[in-house]
Amino acid sequence: MENQDLFPSASMSVTVDVLLFTIEDGKLKLLLIRRGEEPFDGVPALPGVFIRPDETPEAAAERAIREETGLTGIYLEQLYTFGAVDRDPRRRIISIAYMALVPRERLTFTAGVRTREAWLEDVDALLQDDRPLAFDHREIIRTARIRLAGKVEYTDIAFHLAGEKFTLPDLQRIFEILLGEKLYKANFRKKMAEKIEETGGMLSGGPYRPSKLYRLKKEKDRS
Amino acid sequence: MENQDLFPSASMSVTVDVLLFTIEDGKLKLLLIRRGEEPFDGVPALPGVFIRPDETPEAAAERAIREETGLTGIYLEQLYTFGAVDRDPRRRIISIAYMALVPRERLTFTAGVRTREAWLEDVDALLQDDRPLAFDHREIIRTARIRLAGKVEYTDIAFHLAGEKFTLPDLQRIFEILLGEKLYKANFRKKMAEKIEETGGMLSGGPYRPSKLYRLKKEKDRS
Repeated sequence: MENQDLFPSASMSVTVDVLLFTIEDGKLKLLLIRRGEEPFDGVPALPGVFIRPDETPEAAAERAIREETGLTGIYLEQLYTFGAVDRDPRRRIISIAYMALVPRERLTFTAGVRTREAWLEDVDALLQDDRPLAFDHREIIRTARIRLAGKVEYTDIAFHLAGEKFTLPDLQRIFEILLGEKLYKANFRKKMAEKIEETGGMLSGGPYRPSKLYRLKKEKDRS
Repeated sequence: MENQDLFPSASMSVTVDVLLFTIEDGKLKLLLIRRGEEPFDGVPALPGVFIRPDETPEAAAERAIREETGLTGIYLEQLYTFGAVDRDPRRRIISIAYMALVPRERLTFTAGVRTREAWLEDVDALLQDDRPLAFDHREIIRTARIRLAGKVEYTDIAFHLAGEKFTLPDLQRIFEILLGEKLYKANFRKKMAEKIEETGGMLSGGPYRPSKLYRLKKEKDRS
């Protein structure tokens, strides 16, 4: 029995799957692709690639994003590794899932190399219906959605969905979308006070009066 | 170039490494083993096993714990997956790290099958010196230590280090050890009030007056 540990005969393939989140039209959205091959040919899926022998999981996740969107240098964090024995019908494949967060204005599409289509899907609507998704990607998306909502409270993760400069109403809207609830403006501003600072600039245009622009303070500048 | 993705020629081995934490003599301690084979023969390491073809990563982590300690059914959560290209000198091996937390009184040692020794090491002392550890296990331990301290504030993770019943001073000590700082008794008790309830029992014995015993409330019973 122990020989199997010392000299494991069976190797596995390891993939990364990427959850690229953005906010569009007041909704949390996620990049999905339509698979162009078996298994699950034609079924929506998360973008993903097999990890190459000379590549870290993080570099593979960056490659998956680059191939689907042309984007580089965006915020990325490891979510969880999914390893159910039968999660892929082909063979044993373990997948390391990464979350990427990007402001909508940075996101443009280039044609996916291996996919026929890529689009942004409303995450909360997706999790409430039962349309098919490839592999265990529904479970991965649900895990990511819960993690995102949880991390809003105790990290700066939400700021990756805002641009470098943002107005307070826009920032509050991002928090509300991630948390799935309305926040009181006064409480929100009080909570943000130690994290953000004015840039000195204003956002004008449109029928409303101009709004002050803010940015995230550096860690070292926080009280 | 894309062929490599569609038909990945290179498979990898996938291991789990386990960080089994407990509290002993007022310190956060971690189970280490002395490796009994190359690479890193004789060097301290985390317990770990190769994942078998028919086994989930979590089941492999449970097996690693069972083989080293005889324990089953203890609290386990996935920490992070480590995948640096050169982390193992033999070949490409990706490791999924799991944290296990157990009260000291449940922890007994059975002789590890493949190891000459297993012992509990003071985590914070270990992270402050530079003695050799196998593979990237120092980085894994550092990652786990930071995660543990972070999760104390917003989860019930610390309670897995207490028994099912505990006194308030013992619980406070566990929090202080994980956070690495003294806490004010009144604040701590106020913070715990919504999470714990009296069992009705007392802990007596020793020179001090008996202390009330508490337990963690079920989620649904919290206000």
